[in-house]
Amino acid sequence: MNDPASRIMARCVELRGISADPTAYSRHYLTAEHRAAATLVTGWMRAAGMAARLDAAGNVVGRYEGERPAAAALLLGSHLDTVRDGGTYDGQLGVVTAIEVVQALSDSGQRLGCAIEIYAFADEEGVRFSSGYIGSGLVACGETGVALNAHDAGGTTFAEALAAFGLNPARLAEARRRPEEALAYLELHIEQGPVLEAEGLAVGTVTSITGQSRLAATVAGVAGHAGTVPMTLRKDALAAAAEAILTVERVARSNPGVVGTVGIVGAGPGAVNVIPGQARFTVDLRSGIDARRQRALADVLTGFRTIAERRGVAITWDVRVDAPATPCDPHLMTLIDRACAAETGRAFRLPSGAGHDAAEMAALCPSAMIFLRCRDGISHNPAESITPEDAAAGLRTLARAVQMVAADPPRRG
Amino acid sequence: MNDPASRIMARCVELRGISADPTAYSRHYLTAEHRAAATLVTGWMRAAGMAARLDAAGNVVGRYEGERPAAAALLLGSHLDTVRDGGTYDGQLGVVTAIEVVQALSDSGQRLGCAIEIYAFADEEGVRFSSGYIGSGLVACGETGVALNAHDAGGTTFAEALAAFGLNPARLAEARRRPEEALAYLELHIEQGPVLEAEGLAVGTVTSITGQSRLAATVAGVAGHAGTVPMTLRKDALAAAAEAILTVERVARSNPGVVGTVGIVGAGPGAVNVIPGQARFTVDLRSGIDARRQRALADVLTGFRTIAERRGVAITWDVRVDAPATPCDPHLMTLIDRACAAETGRAFRLPSGAGHDAAEMAALCPSAMIFLRCRDGISHNPAESITPEDAAAGLRTLARAVQMVAADPPRRG
Repeated sequence: MNDPASRIMARCVELRGISADPTAYSRHYLTAEHRAAATLVTGWMRAAGMAARLDAAGNVVGRYEGERPAAAALLLGSHLDTVRDGGTYDGQLGVVTAIEVVQALSDSGQRLGCAIEIYAFADEEGVRFSSGYIGSGLVACGETGVALNAHDAGGTTFAEALAAFGLNPARLAEARRRPEEALAYLELHIEQGPVLEAEGLAVGTVTSITGQSRLAATVAGVAGHAGTVPMTLRKDALAAAAEAILTVERVARSNPGVVGTVGIVGAGPGAVNVIPGQARFTVDLRSGIDARRQRALADVLTGFRTIAERRGVAITWDVRVDAPATPCDPHLMTLIDRACAAETGRAFRLPSGAGHDAAEMAALCPSAMIFLRCRDGISHNPAESITPEDAAAGLRTLARAVQMVAADPPRRG
Repeated sequence: MNDPASRIMARCVELRGISADPTAYSRHYLTAEHRAAATLVTGWMRAAGMAARLDAAGNVVGRYEGERPAAAALLLGSHLDTVRDGGTYDGQLGVVTAIEVVQALSDSGQRLGCAIEIYAFADEEGVRFSSGYIGSGLVACGETGVALNAHDAGGTTFAEALAAFGLNPARLAEARRRPEEALAYLELHIEQGPVLEAEGLAVGTVTSITGQSRLAATVAGVAGHAGTVPMTLRKDALAAAAEAILTVERVARSNPGVVGTVGIVGAGPGAVNVIPGQARFTVDLRSGIDARRQRALADVLTGFRTIAERRGVAITWDVRVDAPATPCDPHLMTLIDRACAAETGRAFRLPSGAGHDAAEMAALCPSAMIFLRCRDGISHNPAESITPEDAAAGLRTLARAVQMVAADPPRRG
């Protein structure tokens, strides 16, 4: 286990053992599993020569000093929490790999022109309180979208959960860092998609963290007897919804850099021999470029209006999410391109279609991400998988990027 | 209440009062409500000058003799049972109107060249034992698709229910009639669809009782993260299902006399931010002409195969129902055309997209149906509605048809 890549793989598996459910990997904010994982990670940080502590939000923070004491830090990190029945590498890989970067510096006694800090964020997935990025949001902005009296599925409030964990709800904002303390934020994360695999590349440079629109749509038609209403007299809500679903797909396909998904559908009254009088479906539209997402959304809604008018049904929608994209820092992307090209022979850029702590951290300091190939693009699933060879490639790439950023940090505006 | 149309309307409402659920019209086979309705109808038949009895299946049968005793009978009828939370006229109207036809003959002392018998069938909807047409099936064939040990939702077997009702399970087949006893069968029924209303006609001639195919289909694609899988790499099961749904609609639209419906749809895993890896939907295809239904089904399945191949998903299906159509008797249709034209000025033919007792009775004797306009085509619903004027038109049309059939009965092959 002296090989760093093997240790990365083994530590991800060891973390996987800390689960609220022994058969479905689940570790959520401010739980006993959160505590156990934080303790384990704190020990790894200390073994790598770092000073490590739990911050006011429950994040683990490790610091490896640079050449000059109390220098501003290059921040590395990712998250320690999981979805329900999640995979082994989502989040964890970035934390564990960053520790290996520092371990190598420490082993060779090397100090950089800046300090390095590693954040193991406590809540990125947002399972417990239905709102993600609590850990990185508090670090970057001192704020979270979750009210102290919000409660989890068991009725425990956020404030009660913090107190039970030994944290002071009134002092949450103390997790916030000042911009002058942070040179930049770099995050290594599995891609959670199939692009790098399709390109035959272990690593790639993330260009932006997706913006997102989410709609809940409803179609109101007229229910009727499946045998007695002629086709020409129908106002079939599900047939209209089917056209709308294909409209979402068509618009996303014809707008490069946009993805569109209908994940939920239903029809009522819901009998084999009854023409649906109503249907409902969701829309999830994403792009790393807000203008493209907005144009795609406009195209989708124009399509919905056309379908409704032609079919004589009503299609209505609620915009549930309208979140802008976060572009990665251009200078950091250039450095990551070089770090990736040194590994794979070819710099490759791709957007992140999923949200990440890096999007929150961009409010604090220049931020960027390295994506690592995962098998079949599968994530948020026990089948999530990476190879030890890719783990080694990810470590080398992150280590190179750290050296490059330390030598040539982003200039602050 | 001396006006026959008013009496028809009032009797339908009176029958509606006999319900297992005071807030949702529900009267099922071999229940106390069945008994009460049968008793009421028996009384009405006797008041109309008929001999009335309960047969071995629980049907009420009334007989009005013709000029010669023990002559073969023209059978009239419809059913006394309802769906759950049903309408006031489905089935009941045909029974009550037939009684008024005889009432008028009786009032004027008229005897026809044949006897008239009225059947108030006990089970057409099939709610209690999940199989319809028990009443007319036993009369026509002496058989039913329901086994004596089949049980209802409460665990009571068919045999136990018969015995509790005072019927002998071993003597069910005695309900069967011999072909030489039956000249023809005529049924007046609400259309349960919007065609007559759209045509501005109170009554029309039914050409056939629909044949039906029902499928349960499943699409297997690949689930994935809605943000991270590019459009070109997706195998979205719901998008494929949406195409399939529109294929059903397109095929039905392009095949005259065919209707096609997808009434149930679902996608899994079923989250706004997950690409559906599986989808399921039902298909209901009907036509009065079997060859058209079979051709449409073949077109639909060809479409499914094309979609599956193009999208790289698997679409599989189970054929749950494949029931042929029952054409109405051509001679009876000609007579009904005349009876309708005398009422509305215009004979109009339309298929029945719903199943009816007449389809069972066609196995016994030449059978045909008259459809009566209902409001907005709504049926199987408390909103089911007809006008007293249309009830009067239906009565006059059925009375005319009875006279014509008695004078010119179908020849038997």
